[in-house]
Amino acid sequence: MPRVSQDHLDTRRRQILAGARSCFARHGYEGATVRRLEEATGLSRGAIFHHFKDKESLFLALAEDDAARMADVVADQGLVQVMRDLLHHEGPSTGVEWLGTRLEVSRRLRTDRDFRERWAQRSEHLTAATKARLKWQRDSGNLRDDVDIDVLAAYLELVLEGLVSHLAMGLPADDLGPVLDLVEESVRR
Amino acid sequence: MPRVSQDHLDTRRRQILAGARSCFARHGYEGATVRRLEEATGLSRGAIFHHFKDKESLFLALAEDDAARMADVVADQGLVQVMRDLLHHEGPSTGVEWLGTRLEVSRRLRTDRDFRERWAQRSEHLTAATKARLKWQRDSGNLRDDVDIDVLAAYLELVLEGLVSHLAMGLPADDLGPVLDLVEESVRR
Repeated sequence: MPRVSQDHLDTRRRQILAGARSCFARHGYEGATVRRLEEATGLSRGAIFHHFKDKESLFLALAEDDAARMADVVADQGLVQVMRDLLHHEGPSTGVEWLGTRLEVSRRLRTDRDFRERWAQRSEHLTAATKARLKWQRDSGNLRDDVDIDVLAAYLELVLEGLVSHLAMGLPADDLGPVLDLVEESVRR
Repeated sequence: MPRVSQDHLDTRRRQILAGARSCFARHGYEGATVRRLEEATGLSRGAIFHHFKDKESLFLALAEDDAARMADVVADQGLVQVMRDLLHHEGPSTGVEWLGTRLEVSRRLRTDRDFRERWAQRSEHLTAATKARLKWQRDSGNLRDDVDIDVLAAYLELVLEGLVSHLAMGLPADDLGPVLDLVEESVRR
């Protein structure tokens, strides 16, 4: 029964990713030991590393998974909505934990050259979704048409990165709603 | 001759800050050991800590010094110009090294709650300079007048933080000029 087996594998994989997400968010990449990953997922290291080659692969799968969900929200509602969700801690997965993964990605991009290279290929997702959404908005006549879509996408990603960093530094964020209104307005017609 | 003595003290203080700036930029806060600070400044630990109580005080003085210089550029040319300088590695002090200090501040804000509190009082400088500049721009009729100055200042600071983070992650920045044009235009009339 290969179908049942595949369902079982998928379920198990999701279980591992969910546990690992909160574990990485709480302890950071280095602090997420194999023992802590076992506790967070409720599975043995054997079971975990049957699905993922090593901790690095697990983290990359998780980050990619979150980026894909984020890309889905972008496709539906745009990158500014992702930022609004972030502000209200309602991420496409489980809010603050999604922010946790994103922060770990940012941190490792700053400090780990190997990770930077591995991540580069995977982060295309979000940029592609952002550009597709912008193109659709332009075709609908909602987007300003005097600025290149690549520039608008780079602009929105820069603001997102600023927001992630702002939240990571624990700075007050309750007054950022009007700032995001301004961002949204500045890409619209 | 108290005047000469004060000049001497000021010169020595600047010498220490310049050496410490490159040392922190190269090795990070934790990696900037007292021995490395001695090498970078060309002074003994006795001389260094005659001027600054401890490493933490030295770093804070440096960060404050850089923020004050940045505030001067903001007052003269606006925060967008600071971002353009950052893009071209021509900071108000010595370019890349100024970015280094800024990155260390961002990192420690994320990871060190005590530092966060100590820094909060000192970072007012930049916000105050940004707001003063915006107010002047508004009075000159260059600034849009349908959005509160606090919102515009928060917006520019968010983009700056995004840019700092972007550069820290080693992402390509040569295509960000048009993005900064868009940012500048979005606060203007």
